[in-house]
Amino acid sequence: MQSFDYCTPTRLIFGKDSIEKLPQVLKPLGKKVLLTYGGGSIKKIGLYDKVKALLTDFALVELSGIQPNPKYDPSVLDGVRLCKEHDVDVILSVGGGSVLDCSKAIAAGAKYDGDPWDLISYKVKAKAALPIVDVLTLAATGSEFDCGGVISRTETNDKIGYMDRLLFPVCSILDPTYTFTVSKKQTAAGCADAMNHIMEQYFCADSSLLADGFMEAGLKSLMVNTRKCLDNPEDYTARAEMMLACTYGCNGIYSLGSSDTGWPCHGIEHALSAYYDITHGEGLAIITPRWMRHILNERTLPRFVKYGVNVFEIDPSLPEMEIAEQAIDETYRFFASISIPMHLRDVGIDESRIGEMAHHIAVNEGLEQAWAPLTEQDITEILLASL
Amino acid sequence: MQSFDYCTPTRLIFGKDSIEKLPQVLKPLGKKVLLTYGGGSIKKIGLYDKVKALLTDFALVELSGIQPNPKYDPSVLDGVRLCKEHDVDVILSVGGGSVLDCSKAIAAGAKYDGDPWDLISYKVKAKAALPIVDVLTLAATGSEFDCGGVISRTETNDKIGYMDRLLFPVCSILDPTYTFTVSKKQTAAGCADAMNHIMEQYFCADSSLLADGFMEAGLKSLMVNTRKCLDNPEDYTARAEMMLACTYGCNGIYSLGSSDTGWPCHGIEHALSAYYDITHGEGLAIITPRWMRHILNERTLPRFVKYGVNVFEIDPSLPEMEIAEQAIDETYRFFASISIPMHLRDVGIDESRIGEMAHHIAVNEGLEQAWAPLTEQDITEILLASL
Repeated sequence: MQSFDYCTPTRLIFGKDSIEKLPQVLKPLGKKVLLTYGGGSIKKIGLYDKVKALLTDFALVELSGIQPNPKYDPSVLDGVRLCKEHDVDVILSVGGGSVLDCSKAIAAGAKYDGDPWDLISYKVKAKAALPIVDVLTLAATGSEFDCGGVISRTETNDKIGYMDRLLFPVCSILDPTYTFTVSKKQTAAGCADAMNHIMEQYFCADSSLLADGFMEAGLKSLMVNTRKCLDNPEDYTARAEMMLACTYGCNGIYSLGSSDTGWPCHGIEHALSAYYDITHGEGLAIITPRWMRHILNERTLPRFVKYGVNVFEIDPSLPEMEIAEQAIDETYRFFASISIPMHLRDVGIDESRIGEMAHHIAVNEGLEQAWAPLTEQDITEILLASL
Repeated sequence: MQSFDYCTPTRLIFGKDSIEKLPQVLKPLGKKVLLTYGGGSIKKIGLYDKVKALLTDFALVELSGIQPNPKYDPSVLDGVRLCKEHDVDVILSVGGGSVLDCSKAIAAGAKYDGDPWDLISYKVKAKAALPIVDVLTLAATGSEFDCGGVISRTETNDKIGYMDRLLFPVCSILDPTYTFTVSKKQTAAGCADAMNHIMEQYFCADSSLLADGFMEAGLKSLMVNTRKCLDNPEDYTARAEMMLACTYGCNGIYSLGSSDTGWPCHGIEHALSAYYDITHGEGLAIITPRWMRHILNERTLPRFVKYGVNVFEIDPSLPEMEIAEQAIDETYRFFASISIPMHLRDVGIDESRIGEMAHHIAVNEGLEQAWAPLTEQDITEILLASL
């Protein structure tokens, strides 16, 4: 059991119509609100109009068009500029994890005089940030219950995860009905993202019955409920449970006391979506089983056995290596069964830049310190196996 | 899946030597500290001296002698008086859940002009409370991660659980080594308390795979690790895991989205310890299997089946009623196996006041609204079966 220092001040208001509490949540935070969102989906489902109707007592400034794999330029820079120009008090993020991640970078940048990239790249530690409230429309990243975000900078192929305790949302409004219209593709990708968040915590040197049980419950819940969501997109209970299982993803609560793993699949995937702007959850689903196969050895075997027996109910009396191999096959099969493209070629990535990406990952992601250390050669092999 | 509104701002600093951070935790909260503790155990293990040595820059006022099932008079009243007399800034609770529960009542009372019982009995809603920091020495109640407490008033046989969001500890310092010297009796009672906290959430009308998995992991972890703690009281890993499983107990995180159950065993046990001042965890262990047997019927059966199969690994192919009966037997046997006295007579309670207690419970605890509703007659029968 490892020592830890944990605190999550974020309030979760969960359930149908929880948005009704939005005005009272925002009121103590200020009058001037930067409303951030992505494309048109919040307009299509009536959420944009609902928010506007609820916030007639507030002054709204809008930043729209925030993309998946949110971009430093223009989104973060535009948001920071708007906050400074309009002396914004609070950011209201309405959308999925990308809008929220972008909003976090804006929140820190708005209270900083220099180039916001200084903060994202950890050159400078933020001293303050605007408060953030979010209304979530996609179950995936868990950004609604953590203090981190991922920002991409196109010209340098950087996709950086940054964290700061200042960036926990004050409140996350989680209404599962807002995810009813999420496409099958995005529902599946969200599931893969959240499952990988758990796996990135599960495959570690030191865990506990408690944390393992939490994570195994999270994985099983995600698989069962995602299938239900795909079969019936308006299944409230399944959407709700999927949402909550995703929300816990990066908060730490799944694995308090477990040792750090280095989050290797995220390290690898960040390069894929930085170079090719693919869907993050799909990239993770493609990488995960190949990473598993690559790191499976006598030392890592016991974790795979536990995973196979407890998550996929593989017969514990089989030889251990067989259980591990079956568990990896099951992982692959599950992702394939929810129609995730399971090869890099399927998402437009060929071998041409694999060497370059592997080098970038090896230099920037510190995966030689992971639980199962990865050299540039290892990363290259995992990427080639994923083609 | 039920709607919920969840927020736990408490910081958990967990692990060996985490107390070293105490001065920096207290510093922003003020200079004048009310140090609350119980009997001599924190002196015996050197913790009292350690705290004093760390806090030479602070002005300490002390309230000692806080008892298990902490008393309104004198402990809460004395603490409130001390806070007002010395203009205390922050309360530092060093001890187990009773010291912390008492400190919470003091924290609210210190900021209130009237009789603190007004707050505890919900006659008046607290408007403010002193901040609380705690150093935990017993794994049991989970008070370190919730905003509630239980206070007893001897002259009226009241034992009241009160909650207020103002009463979350600012920070809980959780060093498992401080529990090495906890007696076998108290270790077992702490386990029973924490297991019952989970069962009070598990036996409900509406739950999820996720919450059920969390709770089943908590129960299994508590049983395995308590046994290890009893075999080897200085097993750090087992003490640590037991501590964390207890910490989650009343926070809500085990069961977000599950429906309320009414916490029937606590309702019943509060009267037992109000009338007889018995050890809370022992009272719960005695009541729990009798309550289970009493409420088992066709409607409640599915939860017992799930509990039996997932927690005790009872063969799922058996007839459902047999699984449920076995699960109840296993619950009883586990408590007995860790040497908890399993009859009311063993803890000094005979039949003489059962009618009186059952009436008190029926009038005060609202158990007719529980998931499995209990009338005064039901409560009487459960108590008689527990003799």
